[in-house]
Amino acid sequence: MAFLENTWYAAAWSGEVGRQLLPRTFLNQPVVLYRKENGAIAALADRCPHRFVPLHLGKLKGDIVECGYHGLCFKDTGECSFNPHGDGAIPKAARVKSYKVAERHGVVWIWMGDADLADESKIHDFGQFGDSERYASVFGYLHVAANYQLITDNLLDLTHGQYIHPLFANPAGPSTMEPNPPYDENTVWAKFIRRNQYPNKYFEMLGYPGDRRGDHRNYMRWNPPALLLLDVGMTGVGEPHDKGISIPTAHLLTPETESTTHYFWGMARDFRRDDTALGEILLQIGTNVFDNEDKPIIEAQQRSMGSTTELLALKPVLLQTDAPAVRARRILGELIQNEEHGKQAASNVAS
Amino acid sequence: MAFLENTWYAAAWSGEVGRQLLPRTFLNQPVVLYRKENGAIAALADRCPHRFVPLHLGKLKGDIVECGYHGLCFKDTGECSFNPHGDGAIPKAARVKSYKVAERHGVVWIWMGDADLADESKIHDFGQFGDSERYASVFGYLHVAANYQLITDNLLDLTHGQYIHPLFANPAGPSTMEPNPPYDENTVWAKFIRRNQYPNKYFEMLGYPGDRRGDHRNYMRWNPPALLLLDVGMTGVGEPHDKGISIPTAHLLTPETESTTHYFWGMARDFRRDDTALGEILLQIGTNVFDNEDKPIIEAQQRSMGSTTELLALKPVLLQTDAPAVRARRILGELIQNEEHGKQAASNVAS
Amino acid sequence: MAFLENTWYAAAWSGEVGRQLLPRTFLNQPVVLYRKENGAIAALADRCPHRFVPLHLGKLKGDIVECGYHGLCFKDTGECSFNPHGDGAIPKAARVKSYKVAERHGVVWIWMGDADLADESKIHDFGQFGDSERYASVFGYLHVAANYQLITDNLLDLTHGQYIHPLFANPAGPSTMEPNPPYDENTVWAKFIRRNQYPNKYFEMLGYPGDRRGDHRNYMRWNPPALLLLDVGMTGVGEPHDKGISIPTAHLLTPETESTTHYFWGMARDFRRDDTALGEILLQIGTNVFDNEDKPIIEAQQRSMGSTTELLALKPVLLQTDAPAVRARRILGELIQNEEHGKQAASNVAS
Repeated sequence: MAFLENTWYAAAWSGEVGRQLLPRTFLNQPVVLYRKENGAIAALADRCPHRFVPLHLGKLKGDIVECGYHGLCFKDTGECSFNPHGDGAIPKAARVKSYKVAERHGVVWIWMGDADLADESKIHDFGQFGDSERYASVFGYLHVAANYQLITDNLLDLTHGQYIHPLFANPAGPSTMEPNPPYDENTVWAKFIRRNQYPNKYFEMLGYPGDRRGDHRNYMRWNPPALLLLDVGMTGVGEPHDKGISIPTAHLLTPETESTTHYFWGMARDFRRDDTALGEILLQIGTNVFDNEDKPIIEAQQRSMGSTTELLALKPVLLQTDAPAVRARRILGELIQNEEHGKQAASNVAS
Repeated sequence: MAFLENTWYAAAWSGEVGRQLLPRTFLNQPVVLYRKENGAIAALADRCPHRFVPLHLGKLKGDIVECGYHGLCFKDTGECSFNPHGDGAIPKAARVKSYKVAERHGVVWIWMGDADLADESKIHDFGQFGDSERYASVFGYLHVAANYQLITDNLLDLTHGQYIHPLFANPAGPSTMEPNPPYDENTVWAKFIRRNQYPNKYFEMLGYPGDRRGDHRNYMRWNPPALLLLDVGMTGVGEPHDKGISIPTAHLLTPETESTTHYFWGMARDFRRDDTALGEILLQIGTNVFDNEDKPIIEAQQRSMGSTTELLALKPVLLQTDAPAVRARRILGELIQNEEHGKQAASNVAS
Repeated sequence: MAFLENTWYAAAWSGEVGRQLLPRTFLNQPVVLYRKENGAIAALADRCPHRFVPLHLGKLKGDIVECGYHGLCFKDTGECSFNPHGDGAIPKAARVKSYKVAERHGVVWIWMGDADLADESKIHDFGQFGDSERYASVFGYLHVAANYQLITDNLLDLTHGQYIHPLFANPAGPSTMEPNPPYDENTVWAKFIRRNQYPNKYFEMLGYPGDRRGDHRNYMRWNPPALLLLDVGMTGVGEPHDKGISIPTAHLLTPETESTTHYFWGMARDFRRDDTALGEILLQIGTNVFDNEDKPIIEAQQRSMGSTTELLALKPVLLQTDAPAVRARRILGELIQNEEHGKQAASNVAS
C-alpha cells in the first residue's frame, strides 16, 4: 500500500535535532536532519548524487553539508555550492531534494510530498508539548518492526491495557467504549471509560487516593496519517474532567518502511511541574510500557502476518471495540487513494 | 514440495508439554501445545483470529487460552468461549483450528491434515520409549536449518559414522550394508553391520570387553514421513541379537518449514536402568553427536544446495549405500503425490 | 551483470595457502584451495557431487581431499579416486571441477572460465610483490559487502583521500588529476599529483623531511577485471620519481558475489627492508585505512544503492575526476559483453 505523502509527519522531537547530522528514513526515503546556525531545521535527502554515499557520513560546516567521500558541498536548499575538484564546475544535476520542515509543539514535522502544498496551518494540535509555561513534558522514541497502522490499531483500542499493561489495568475490568461522535474526514475518537472504580496503579502512583472511587477515562483522538493524542485522566465520580488528574499523552507514528515504524511518544502534565523525580518516573513508565509491553506484541503480530502489512487483507474477526480503528483505516485509505488518483490525473495531463 | 499432511508427526516428547503454552511450528503452521487439567494434550493454531497475535503470548486459564492482546478466550476445541468487550457477542468466525493429538510411546503426536482421517492405530511402534517398566530412556531435541529429508538421508546411510563420529567409528572400517528385505509401502530398512571386530569406543564405554571381537550392527527402520528407529547393538561373533548390548534409538523428524526441521531423538536401554550416571552420559553423547557432528554437516549441505530443498533435483551422484534413502524418498514422494491428487479430485467434485 | 570469466583473478596471497583446506567463493562459485605436497597449488569446486557437502569440511590426505561426510576421495584433477563403500565402484559423474591456478608475484591467481584459454603470460605485472630480493612487502585482506566495481571507483579517484584518510590528506588540498595517456583496451591510468607542498603525515612518517617541500604523486594503474597498482611516492620539487621515497601498493579485487568482494592489498618497499618495525607499522596503517576508513563508506554506498550493483544504472552525477573510473567500467563492460556474445555464438553452433 502506498503512503500518504502530502501530509505532515513527525520527524523528531525538537530536542533530538542539533548540530549533528541525524539520519532517519521516512516512507522509504533516507533523510538527514540538522539545525542551522540560526536555529531553524533543515532536511535533505541523505544520498549524495555523485556516488550515493549517505550525506550524514559527512560534515556539517556552518549551514552546509560536505559529503564525506569526495567533498561536494550542499546548501540546506539542496543545491550544490562547491565542487573541490577539476575546474570546480558544478554539474546541473548536482542537487539533492530538500524537504519542508516545521517545528511546532515540540515536534519537528516533515512534509514528504509536494513542497508547494505544505501548509503549516494544517499541523494538528499537540499544544501541550510546546507549552513549557503550563506543562512539563517527557519525551520518548522507539523503533517498531511493524507496519504503522498496527500501532494505530493498538492505540485506538485501549481495552488491551487490561491484558498487557498491569500498571494500567482497571480493578473493575476492561474499559467500556462510549458512543463516539460521528467522525469527520479529519478526526476519529475512541473514548474508553471505567466509571465508579478505585484507581488503577497508575493513578494511585500519580496521587489519586487509593480508597476513593472515581471515573477513569482514556479518550483517544486520531488524525491522519497516524497522529494520536490521549486524554487520560481520573476524576471523582461524575466530576468534570478539568477537576481531576490528567496526563495528556502524544503518540506520533511515522512509517520508516512498510514494515517498520518510528514511534514518538510524549507525556505532559500541568501539576508538579518542577518535580523532576516524577518526570523521571513517567519517562521510565513510558519506556517500559511501550518498549517492553506493546512493542513485543505488535511485532509478534506483524511476524504472524508474514509479509502482509495490510491487516484487513487477512480478514480478521472484528469486535465492536474495533470500530474506531476500522474507521481510521478507511479514512486513511481514501486519502491515499485520492492522492494516487490525483497523481495519475496529473501525469495524464502532462503526457 | 508439498508436505504429507494426513499422517502422524512427532510434536514433542511427552515431558515437554505441561501447563505452559508451548509454541512450535509444523509444516509452516504455527501451533500452541498445552496439557489440560485432566492431563490430555491440546493443540491449537497459534494465531488469534482477531488481531493475529500468537496465542502462546497469552495465558492458560484452566483448559482455556486467553489471548494476551485483548482477552478473547478459546477452548481446546478451538471455539471462542468468551469476548470480554462490548455486549460480549462472539462473532461466528471467532475460532481457531484445533489439531488432533495423541500421546503414545512417550511422544506427543500431531495430525496436521484432515482430522476425520486421524487414526491412532496407525501410529508407528516406538514402544521402548513409553515402557518405563522395561526401559530407561533419555530424550533430546535439536533444531536443524535443513530440509527434513536431508536428515532422513543421513540416518539411512550410517556409513557416515566412520567420517564424522569418532565415537562410533569402527576400528575395522566403515560398516557394510546387508541385503535389505524387499520394501513395502510402509517400511524401509537400512541394515549396516561390521562383523568380527573389536568394539568401537561407544560399545566399549557401554561395557563390551575391549579385547573381545564381536558383531556390531546398525539396523535402521524408516517409516513415512520421517520416523526412524535404530536397532544398534553389539554381540559376540555370530551370537543372536538378543544376547548382547543394545541401545534402541529413535529419530523423529518433523518439518518446521521446507528448510528447517524439528529433530527429536531418544535412547532407550533395558540394562543398568537405575544407573543415572549412565543416563547422563548417554544424554551428553547424543547431544554432542547430533548437535556438534551431524547438524553442522547437514546444515552446510543445505546451504550448499542454496534454496533447493529437494536433493534429487540437483542430480547427485548415487552410491550403492544410497539405495535405502532413495527408496524412502520415492515412497514419501508417492504418498504426497497421491494426497495431492486426492485433494484435487475432491475439489473438482466440490466445484 | 555477468562477470568476466576468462581472466585471471586473485584467489589468495601465496602465504595464505598451505596444508589446510581453504574455502573461498569466487564469482558465486565455491572453491577449496590447498597446497600439494610438491608445493603447487590446487583448486577444486568446494562441493562433493554425492551429497553436496563442502569439501573443505573434509580432510587433506597427501594430495587427495577426502569428503567429510561419506569419505569419497578426490584428486587435484577433480577425479574421484576412491569410494570406500559397497564394491568400491566409482560412478562416472563422481568428479568435481578443477580450476587452473598459477602462483606469480606472491599472488595465487585463479582462472574461473574455460581452462583451455588460461594463459599465464597474460597475468599482469605485480613483480614487486614476488621479488623478495629487492622488496620487502606486507600483505592484507578484507571482505567488503559491496560490488567490486565500487571499489575500483574508489581506487581510480584518489581525491577521496582528502576526505576520508587523515593520514593521506595533503596539506595543500586534494590532489589534482594529470592528463592521462590515451587508454588502450588493457590499461587505464589515473594520475593524481600535488606539487610543491610539505609532506602529508604518511610521507613524514616514512622519513620525508617535514620542512621540505616536494611533489606527492599517486599514479594508479588499472587492468581488467579489477587489478590495480598504485605508484605512490614523494620526491623533491621537480625531481625524477626514482629519486624519492615510494611505496608501490597493490589492490586486487575479486568478486565473491555481485554484492560482496575479496579485497587483497599489499605494500612493497625497496628501502629499510630489514626494518620489521616499519613493516609492522605499514601493516597497521593499511589495515586501519582500508578496514576502518574505506570499507564503511563503500558499504554505506552499496546499501544506499539497494539491490542495484551497477552504479551507472542509477545515473550518478559525474565529475571530471570520474573519467578514469568511467573508462574502466566501459572497458570491462565491453569485455564482458564480448565474452557473453562468444558464448551465445558457441551455443548456437553447438545446437
